[in-house]
Amino acid sequence: MTVLLEPVPDAVRLPAGFRAGAVHCGLKKAGLLDLGVLVADHDVEAAAVFTRNRLVGAHVELCRDHLARSGGRVRAVLVNARNANCATGAQGLDDARRCCRELAQRLGCPTEQVLMASTGPIGLPLPTERIVSHLDALLERTSPGGGLDFARAILTTDTHPKAVQVDVGRHCATGIAKGAGMIHPDMATMLAFLLTDAELPPAGARGLLPDLARRSFHRVTVDGDTSPNDTLLLLGGHRPGAVGHEGAVATARALLQVGQRLARQIAADGEGATRLVTVCVRGAADEDEASHVGRVIATSPLVKTAVTGRDPNWGRILSAAGRAGVAFDPERARVWIGDTEVYADGIPHPEREPEAHRHLAERSKVVLGIDLARGDASAEVWTCDLTADYVQTNADYRS
Amino acid sequence: MTVLLEPVPDAVRLPAGFRAGAVHCGLKKAGLLDLGVLVADHDVEAAAVFTRNRLVGAHVELCRDHLARSGGRVRAVLVNARNANCATGAQGLDDARRCCRELAQRLGCPTEQVLMASTGPIGLPLPTERIVSHLDALLERTSPGGGLDFARAILTTDTHPKAVQVDVGRHCATGIAKGAGMIHPDMATMLAFLLTDAELPPAGARGLLPDLARRSFHRVTVDGDTSPNDTLLLLGGHRPGAVGHEGAVATARALLQVGQRLARQIAADGEGATRLVTVCVRGAADEDEASHVGRVIATSPLVKTAVTGRDPNWGRILSAAGRAGVAFDPERARVWIGDTEVYADGIPHPEREPEAHRHLAERSKVVLGIDLARGDASAEVWTCDLTADYVQTNADYRS
Repeated sequence: MTVLLEPVPDAVRLPAGFRAGAVHCGLKKAGLLDLGVLVADHDVEAAAVFTRNRLVGAHVELCRDHLARSGGRVRAVLVNARNANCATGAQGLDDARRCCRELAQRLGCPTEQVLMASTGPIGLPLPTERIVSHLDALLERTSPGGGLDFARAILTTDTHPKAVQVDVGRHCATGIAKGAGMIHPDMATMLAFLLTDAELPPAGARGLLPDLARRSFHRVTVDGDTSPNDTLLLLGGHRPGAVGHEGAVATARALLQVGQRLARQIAADGEGATRLVTVCVRGAADEDEASHVGRVIATSPLVKTAVTGRDPNWGRILSAAGRAGVAFDPERARVWIGDTEVYADGIPHPEREPEAHRHLAERSKVVLGIDLARGDASAEVWTCDLTADYVQTNADYRS
Repeated sequence: MTVLLEPVPDAVRLPAGFRAGAVHCGLKKAGLLDLGVLVADHDVEAAAVFTRNRLVGAHVELCRDHLARSGGRVRAVLVNARNANCATGAQGLDDARRCCRELAQRLGCPTEQVLMASTGPIGLPLPTERIVSHLDALLERTSPGGGLDFARAILTTDTHPKAVQVDVGRHCATGIAKGAGMIHPDMATMLAFLLTDAELPPAGARGLLPDLARRSFHRVTVDGDTSPNDTLLLLGGHRPGAVGHEGAVATARALLQVGQRLARQIAADGEGATRLVTVCVRGAADEDEASHVGRVIATSPLVKTAVTGRDPNWGRILSAAGRAGVAFDPERARVWIGDTEVYADGIPHPEREPEAHRHLAERSKVVLGIDLARGDASAEVWTCDLTADYVQTNADYRS
């Protein structure tokens, strides 16, 4: 049933100074890769954005602590799938810390320079022995070409690995992520790692990341649910040197592009998805308003099932926007599907619906648009359709 | 596939002084009832709660206007199904007004004493001629025993009529509603009519209705979507007379009970539903907080599909509560399914999950509970599971 909406990487180029690798340590079945690591040759600058859920996985607490204690310097990130190490109490935090300590010893760096991320079902103790006993083999497998293995190891219900690279002059910005269900603006069950060897803006990784997150991963929603484990990490780069401001701007642009393309890959691989849906909101008072309305539309089960049914149902789009708490005038609004305006100035255009239907039926990437006629701001939000397969997957999967 | 979770009325007793009736005027297929009317022998007090959607059906604007001009006195309510008369511009309002005027002429009352409500697909012109030409036949069919026909006429994707009666001494409180999909705290595609001949509190219908709505219909969610046409009307009653304060309290209690039972019927008849889910939130700081957390849980596709899969997935419940924006401590929270506490004080109890699974598998009405350990307030929210049938229905139906 899987429909491939975005390209699957056949290789992942890592920026200079980074290695990656993965092994099977027994968390997933059938020998599938389930433990991955990113390693920098020297400690690099790091910044993070975490879930806003009140319930957080142990790794979130650990990462916050390690980043504070290391002054935001990181050597490695260890990632396991099939166990979220969440709702596991003090033991969970101890377990995560032990994994980091063991890896740090092997790398010869302080424990706080190692971060960890976990994804999978919650409430089960982390199989720490299993992880620790595979660290040597894991480090032996790291290489500059190990990005794709890493991308595979972190997947859960995803159907394929997600990675994007963009050149920045001689340098490179690379992103690797996992997503699928439970994806929402609040950084849902999503792990994303951005790496670069290019120069960063003067404010560094921490200055750059919040806005990047706001304009990429926070604009994805699969089912409106959010996970306790969402984590976005940015590693590497250096402060402006010879190239100066221009180079920093290019890096910021490249990283945003990587983030947005990964975000689209995540939406496209939403559980059961057959369409990648771009919700385009224009005419908002400001960008936050535009993205908020976009999220309400993108979260609406009625809008999403209309796409499933290839039904150019502008009424559901207008109605979803109507409950976003934004005081727009429906009589002045416009709604389009693909390039076809199906509602404008208070008037539906049923004669154009066959054309809009063809867009939904024939394209795997579809566009739903609304102009609120309030201002000049716009934003895009990415989601997917809601199918019976989504229900099946989540009625079966213990997450 | 329909699972009957709540009793279907075999008769609807109307309070003294009310008549109801319905005809087929050609909006639905196969001769099904699609035009209904409620008529009071004399004009009665009326109060209304409408959708908070920015997009509103023409009848919402019309009702607001008529209630203002009549001083909240009403003789009749005309209801049509299969056409929402929404996104129909000035013509839509003219059409609704014409229907009311025609009915008022036949009843010999001012136009503003007639209200109207429409439900169905949006964006299509109201077939006004068809409606008006059936008004005489409709009035001929009204009787004190016509409540069930009325309840049938207003249905759209509902599988059965919804009505509740509660005695108030010699008097009676009756509720008739339609719901199904697009049901949410913001009064989604829901029409509900409460009638009584008992005495009201001194503040009257308008004083009573907002709190009643807050504690009944605003605690139902099927898919989190909201409609432009939601309308709750309360008609009848009289100000305290001989019986005095005690009688008024009894009426308020009876009407709330009618509202809550109708709300549960609506949740139980959610599109594709196989389980009526009561989300019970305790230990909140106040009732609003409790109902807010309850709504977030009840709206979560992951919680709803877990019920579909009969999976006692406390992690999804805790995680949904965690994104409600309420600062509770997950380590002190408790989660139960049926009578079984599956998570308490930061510790999962997997050994109890088989019992919780049996509750979900064997009962058609299931309970998901969470104690936030913050305060003493509690609230219930009603919803249903999310099934492949829901997706099918909404991928097919143009609403």
